[in-house]
Amino acid sequence: MLTLYYTPHTCSLATHIALADAGADYKLERIDFAAEQQKSPAFLAINPKARVPALVTPQGILTETPAMLAFVAQTFPAARLAPLDNPFAFAEVQSFNSYLCSTVHVAHAHRMRGYRWADEPEAIAAMQRKVPQSVGACFELIESQMLRGPWVMGCDYSIADPYLFTLAQWLEKDGVDVKRIPRVIDHRARMAERPNVRKAIAEQLTD
Amino acid sequence: MLTLYYTPHTCSLATHIALADAGADYKLERIDFAAEQQKSPAFLAINPKARVPALVTPQGILTETPAMLAFVAQTFPAARLAPLDNPFAFAEVQSFNSYLCSTVHVAHAHRMRGYRWADEPEAIAAMQRKVPQSVGACFELIESQMLRGPWVMGCDYSIADPYLFTLAQWLEKDGVDVKRIPRVIDHRARMAERPNVRKAIAEQLTD
Repeated sequence: MLTLYYTPHTCSLATHIALADAGADYKLERIDFAAEQQKSPAFLAINPKARVPALVTPQGILTETPAMLAFVAQTFPAARLAPLDNPFAFAEVQSFNSYLCSTVHVAHAHRMRGYRWADEPEAIAAMQRKVPQSVGACFELIESQMLRGPWVMGCDYSIADPYLFTLAQWLEKDGVDVKRIPRVIDHRARMAERPNVRKAIAEQLTD
Repeated sequence: MLTLYYTPHTCSLATHIALADAGADYKLERIDFAAEQQKSPAFLAINPKARVPALVTPQGILTETPAMLAFVAQTFPAARLAPLDNPFAFAEVQSFNSYLCSTVHVAHAHRMRGYRWADEPEAIAAMQRKVPQSVGACFELIESQMLRGPWVMGCDYSIADPYLFTLAQWLEKDGVDVKRIPRVIDHRARMAERPNVRKAIAEQLTD
């Protein structure tokens, strides 16, 4: 049994979808950001970084979405969620996911969590003003250079797809002009129709 | 043959050390940031993100340090640079490296590259003022919760070690009080004595 600690509308959705795609036996534990539950001693014992997601496994606890996604793919090889037998192709998947966590998610985080990087309200407001441009530039690069189609890596669906889908949930609130990224939006629409994606979203909102 | 595109004093050192540790046959191509060579058409054809490192392999080009490090470990299994036969242990390595790229390196980047996230000089200065605190908090978490010792993952050296060493190069310029992180500093000192680390640093500075 795997237990995913999650919060709705965060990047925890990516691993949640991957668990459903893998056919994993999992349960969910919701962390309430409004109540600052991520800073509770009970949750800090699970993830001292005070963030979601975290995945409790029989061997221990994992954090960081790219690591959790690769773990799901490797633990459930029959689901074929990554090219596990080809180190170069596997690295391409990991490169995409690493770009999402280190650049795309970070650009987005300057809208809601600017306090991580500056104290002054004016600076935090300045960061918020740039989010449409910085997140937009990331997604335009994905649109033109990285998203092969029909799935991120080409013909084969992989753990890169639920992660891209998850970050693409935030585009409109980030102020990105989605007309400039039609292939990303088409990918998002096709992902949203997948039964496991619908299942994961429904589970997060009704848990 | 592998070709590493690098710039001295950047995170490209991590992959460089891993290539040396792996006994890989590699060559180096230096990208001159002062001349904005990373924005040249020739380099954008290699990495449209206009950043180092990039690793040209016989199968194609890889970017993003965590992906490149895992690729080196998987391509040279005899070097034993990651626990390749244990998906959970491998995920722990990847989780550490993901934290470095998405949180630690990002906190550091607000000192030199604040223009990525705001336009106003005052906001960029505000970001710079917070770097000692934000980078310091990351390294205090590594010190107290993540660095097992003697190596990051415990008894076995792995691809997490050159990556931590590389980011720890920047601590003093980031204004972090290194007296608060003696275990990180001890790790850095032991890494600096390793022949492959000395070799990689020498190659970067004399190339």
